[in-house]
Amino acid sequence: MEPGPPGGGRPHEPGPFLSGPRGADLAAPASSLSVVAAVLPAGGCGERMGVPTPKQFCPILERPLISYTLQALERVCWIKDIVVAVTGENIEAMKSIIQKYQHKRISVVEAGMTRHRSIFNGLKALAEEQPNLQLSKPEVVIIHDAVRPFVEEDVLLKVVTAAKEHGCSDYDLEFGTECLQLALKYCHTKAKLVEGSPDLWKVTYKRDLYAAESIIKERISQVICIVMDTKENKEHVGHLLEEVLKSELNHVKITPGTLCHAGKGLQQIILEQCYNFVCVNVMSSDFQETQKLLSLLEESNLSILYPVVVVSVHFFDFKLVPLSQKMENLMWIREFAKEVKKRNILLYGLLICYSQDEQKLQESLRQGTIIIAALIKERNSGLVGQLLVA
Amino acid sequence: MEPGPPGGGRPHEPGPFLSGPRGADLAAPASSLSVVAAVLPAGGCGERMGVPTPKQFCPILERPLISYTLQALERVCWIKDIVVAVTGENIEAMKSIIQKYQHKRISVVEAGMTRHRSIFNGLKALAEEQPNLQLSKPEVVIIHDAVRPFVEEDVLLKVVTAAKEHGCSDYDLEFGTECLQLALKYCHTKAKLVEGSPDLWKVTYKRDLYAAESIIKERISQVICIVMDTKENKEHVGHLLEEVLKSELNHVKITPGTLCHAGKGLQQIILEQCYNFVCVNVMSSDFQETQKLLSLLEESNLSILYPVVVVSVHFFDFKLVPLSQKMENLMWIREFAKEVKKRNILLYGLLICYSQDEQKLQESLRQGTIIIAALIKERNSGLVGQLLVA
Repeated sequence: MEPGPPGGGRPHEPGPFLSGPRGADLAAPASSLSVVAAVLPAGGCGERMGVPTPKQFCPILERPLISYTLQALERVCWIKDIVVAVTGENIEAMKSIIQKYQHKRISVVEAGMTRHRSIFNGLKALAEEQPNLQLSKPEVVIIHDAVRPFVEEDVLLKVVTAAKEHGCSDYDLEFGTECLQLALKYCHTKAKLVEGSPDLWKVTYKRDLYAAESIIKERISQVICIVMDTKENKEHVGHLLEEVLKSELNHVKITPGTLCHAGKGLQQIILEQCYNFVCVNVMSSDFQETQKLLSLLEESNLSILYPVVVVSVHFFDFKLVPLSQKMENLMWIREFAKEVKKRNILLYGLLICYSQDEQKLQESLRQGTIIIAALIKERNSGLVGQLLVA
Repeated sequence: MEPGPPGGGRPHEPGPFLSGPRGADLAAPASSLSVVAAVLPAGGCGERMGVPTPKQFCPILERPLISYTLQALERVCWIKDIVVAVTGENIEAMKSIIQKYQHKRISVVEAGMTRHRSIFNGLKALAEEQPNLQLSKPEVVIIHDAVRPFVEEDVLLKVVTAAKEHGCSDYDLEFGTECLQLALKYCHTKAKLVEGSPDLWKVTYKRDLYAAESIIKERISQVICIVMDTKENKEHVGHLLEEVLKSELNHVKITPGTLCHAGKGLQQIILEQCYNFVCVNVMSSDFQETQKLLSLLEESNLSILYPVVVVSVHFFDFKLVPLSQKMENLMWIREFAKEVKKRNILLYGLLICYSQDEQKLQESLRQGTIIIAALIKERNSGLVGQLLVA
């Protein structure tokens, strides 16, 4: 997986599918607070995980856990600066992660011997005049574990609002963690402990990594864009597939996309962070639609954060062309898949048996839908380039 | 997925791969204690799960969670009786689960309005003379949550030993849960609270179901049996595949199995609960090996508890036979796969490109290994019958 070309940024607009509930009041702190910052202590060694890599660097869909946490914080536009504290030996790796996944507003400082020392170092960087880091002195600092990737904007807002209203109360100092005392004592910066929701759970054991991976896979599988060439008289079977997808995958949103008019419709869908594409090629031996879609996806850099699934669908009538010949014609998918896999795009081929018999056709389309659902759910890079038959 | 034929039991011997550490002392309680029983309160409604099904009945690899917990307890031979308390409306469903997955030594009682009432009902069934249940009055009763499927024999042994040594101490009565008081007060039966390990964690949220599924998938993917016809001069490439499997999948045990001599070697491997088979068919258009293996697996009822993966491997030399023709020859896999899927056996086809060029052959074998690993890891029933190409 390569980072995008220099200068080409990934889509930054938070999509409707990956963000949490957004109330009208969520824009509030931007106006009522001058500066909010976040400090992420990430100097731990992950003893309980049972794996040699510290847990914050363990990969989920090949991307380190900490990158998901950074993503959750950076999409909150009113958090001005995010400071990550990692051990000296991990500073370069952390900088590479920030570059590769194009994270913004992140500074890296060296972690201390303890969690509290790390937080202290982060706060110090925010409090001191450090011309090379260009950080603003914050009014409120959110201390957030690097291994809690599922934090939502509304919880962060509650934290900030509570901090602003109550300041650093005696209650917090007594029952909160010592982090709060540290913040007040050394940095004269307000901090408060706020209860989190179950979603805020901390990745601690190996089983939590499994759970996190499944949650992430589920979240990015909620929308499928079905792309069709709209040449007249040929579109019929594609629309039938769309109907079967809608009825069989009823928890998933099926969005039609078009490559016509220079692909404007699709660009909007990509901006809204849809990570699943079913590309219907109706013309015999035609794969221009899939080629166009892949080019568009490569340009968009959508796949920087998550692997994008593309299923290239082809219909065949075994009364007209033998299956083997059709398969032979589609072997280009293997080579294409190898190429785009380097860009984190997972390309699979799907041959659906076309029949004049309504019932047989419906059965093939249902079988095709099961295969599409399986490919999107698992997002397995080991099976890219395969030609599946329904 | 159908239950096995009447009379045909699943392999009961606990395999070395799914059980925990077994010390020499683990047989102790059988001799030193007369009767140990277990009560599983399972009357909860799973509010926190966010799904309509109570969590103990949520499916993991299509089997209800509670069946995994029963399996963990029933494989401990010194637990004489296991009593499950479920709500009245779930009694029939519970009995079906016990029958379908061939659980032994399990009795079902009706749960009460609270967890404690359910435990009480379970204890009462054990304490009273109930000729139709045929339960023995136990000396020690283990109270175990139905939603903690990963309990190991050594923890259970600690529980029982502590109970036998200390009885129901004041400490337990004060700091343990009220369950213990209940046991003493109403049933004059000794009980004690013992700390568990992280593995004992409780399936509470939806993310825990994801984690449980991944843990189970990982556990049943630790051993792959590679089955070959041993006809001379033809076995070479199969052994090369075996070597690549061993070097690429270094966390997995690769066990060779043979179908010769009426399949005695394989029967032992099945008894040891291996759930993954790679069947190498070297003869062109030969699938007798795969057929024999599938018959053996169907007879064994190995797939009652977990889906069994079978990858039917075929080699082809595209200089001799066009790929399309070879694929056409292997289309029988689709029909076979449909049939055996009913028995929870997941059959996939894998075509590996054979080359005289050593380097090209190695590359194909590595590619084949990646596909085999993906199929075994995901265990996806939506892709059965597909013919994959390496």
